[in-house]
Amino acid sequence: MLNKAPHVAVAMRTIRTVHAISTWSRALHRQGVTIGMVPTMGAFHAGHLALIRAARRSCEAVVVSVFVNPRQFGRGEDVSRYPRRLRSDAALCAREGVDVLFAPTQEGMYPPGFEASVSVRSLARRWEGECRPGHFEGVATVVTKLLSLVRPEIVFFGQKDFQQTLVVKRLVEDLNPGTRMVVLPTVRDPDGLALSSRNPRLTPAERRAAPVLCAALQAGREAIRSGIRSGSRIRKMMHQVVSGERLAQVDYLAVCDPSTLEPRPRLTGTVVLLGAIRLGRTRLIDNLLVRT
Amino acid sequence: MLNKAPHVAVAMRTIRTVHAISTWSRALHRQGVTIGMVPTMGAFHAGHLALIRAARRSCEAVVVSVFVNPRQFGRGEDVSRYPRRLRSDAALCAREGVDVLFAPTQEGMYPPGFEASVSVRSLARRWEGECRPGHFEGVATVVTKLLSLVRPEIVFFGQKDFQQTLVVKRLVEDLNPGTRMVVLPTVRDPDGLALSSRNPRLTPAERRAAPVLCAALQAGREAIRSGIRSGSRIRKMMHQVVSGERLAQVDYLAVCDPSTLEPRPRLTGTVVLLGAIRLGRTRLIDNLLVRT
Repeated sequence: MLNKAPHVAVAMRTIRTVHAISTWSRALHRQGVTIGMVPTMGAFHAGHLALIRAARRSCEAVVVSVFVNPRQFGRGEDVSRYPRRLRSDAALCAREGVDVLFAPTQEGMYPPGFEASVSVRSLARRWEGECRPGHFEGVATVVTKLLSLVRPEIVFFGQKDFQQTLVVKRLVEDLNPGTRMVVLPTVRDPDGLALSSRNPRLTPAERRAAPVLCAALQAGREAIRSGIRSGSRIRKMMHQVVSGERLAQVDYLAVCDPSTLEPRPRLTGTVVLLGAIRLGRTRLIDNLLVRT
Repeated sequence: MLNKAPHVAVAMRTIRTVHAISTWSRALHRQGVTIGMVPTMGAFHAGHLALIRAARRSCEAVVVSVFVNPRQFGRGEDVSRYPRRLRSDAALCAREGVDVLFAPTQEGMYPPGFEASVSVRSLARRWEGECRPGHFEGVATVVTKLLSLVRPEIVFFGQKDFQQTLVVKRLVEDLNPGTRMVVLPTVRDPDGLALSSRNPRLTPAERRAAPVLCAALQAGREAIRSGIRSGSRIRKMMHQVVSGERLAQVDYLAVCDPSTLEPRPRLTGTVVLLGAIRLGRTRLIDNLLVRT
């Protein structure tokens, strides 16, 4: 691919319909242009920026999608509270040399009568799947649609949503969209808090409390590094750290197999430490991969 | 598309791996060649032939897939008894000018760890879905994979599997594979029996009894044409026809809305008459669209 004339980016285009994005991607495929895609829900932070830059570096054309997908929010969840900042997101994309910002409407993505659904059951069952019923079915369905519309060579996701990366990886392997998936490390604030579009909704006191999640995972990592091999001991230590923060309520803290997400009683090889806490009305998740 | 040099068919190629079929289809898409696809389970009859010829007439390149998909057979169903005749199927494809016969292995389609699943719930709930739990999830999953691998401009299905055509149509509209779907009329033997790869398994006595399904649907159609507008009366009349054949057992006979497949108490507009019967170990389905 790289031995042909490079794709010359003109001004960024904003595309709002599924028809127009698929026409655009077909034209590029005919020209043999490799497309990189960054699917997002918008309200960009430095984590998104890292994904966009990685796509820009490795692909000839870059599509960023911004779509607050109602199907991945459970009942009573915060779809209407989810931040929307399309204008500033578009400005950032333009600055970063993105070719297309794909910002479809809800009716365009889910027209009346919409019914199809994609699922990856065993990976979606635990943790986020348990706390947010239907969440991963919503994710898998929208990602399948986006990959079908754009047919990217590479799709970029952040490690912060660890379980999501496994679900999408499974999807990409199983449903043959012809896409490779790249997962980039979580980007953090200096105090360790994983960047999230939900962080700006924290009150000042909640923001001060928020790094406790990362601190708990780090304590778990240190304990593993010090030689502890009992999953339940590590889990208890992480709980202890969070219980020191009175604003935080634990949804789960777990020591798991990084491929299946099943809890690991005895630790060997690589494990993933997963956590989710609530601070007031805001829910935060984080994870760390640790080699024993 | 048609104003460029026509795609020149050389000898038919048989492709057995998902990697090779996706490489082939990518190359054709780059050349702007339109692909027509006929997904089948093999054991061709004149119904398949009609689909293949329609694809040949309307598309520059034709792919026929032959894959006896284990996921669309329920527990205790006849996946191992399903006829397999790849050699004669391939000969027919070659004679008809098919470009590629795609005949993947089960391991190639469903490698270890396979988990993703596609469903279209409300359409899949009744009739075949009730008699064959999991059937349409198997169909939707394999069709999603095939469409992703081949990216045909048009995919061809037969009306005989009426509920399947609705499920696939929904899938094609909802998951954006970039494919148009064409449904061709059911092809029948002179006595009315809808062609099916399962027909050759009927004993001579069962074969003589088999047209009773079509006869029941035709009786329902005649009754509608004569002015009867009660769904339950039509249904009873169809049951009466089948009950005259002692070898046949009814799975269902129904008068439905042709878009939702919900039963219709009062008939207006177009309705579909659906039927499934068992003759010994063989299960037959059929349908008729009727305008009131």
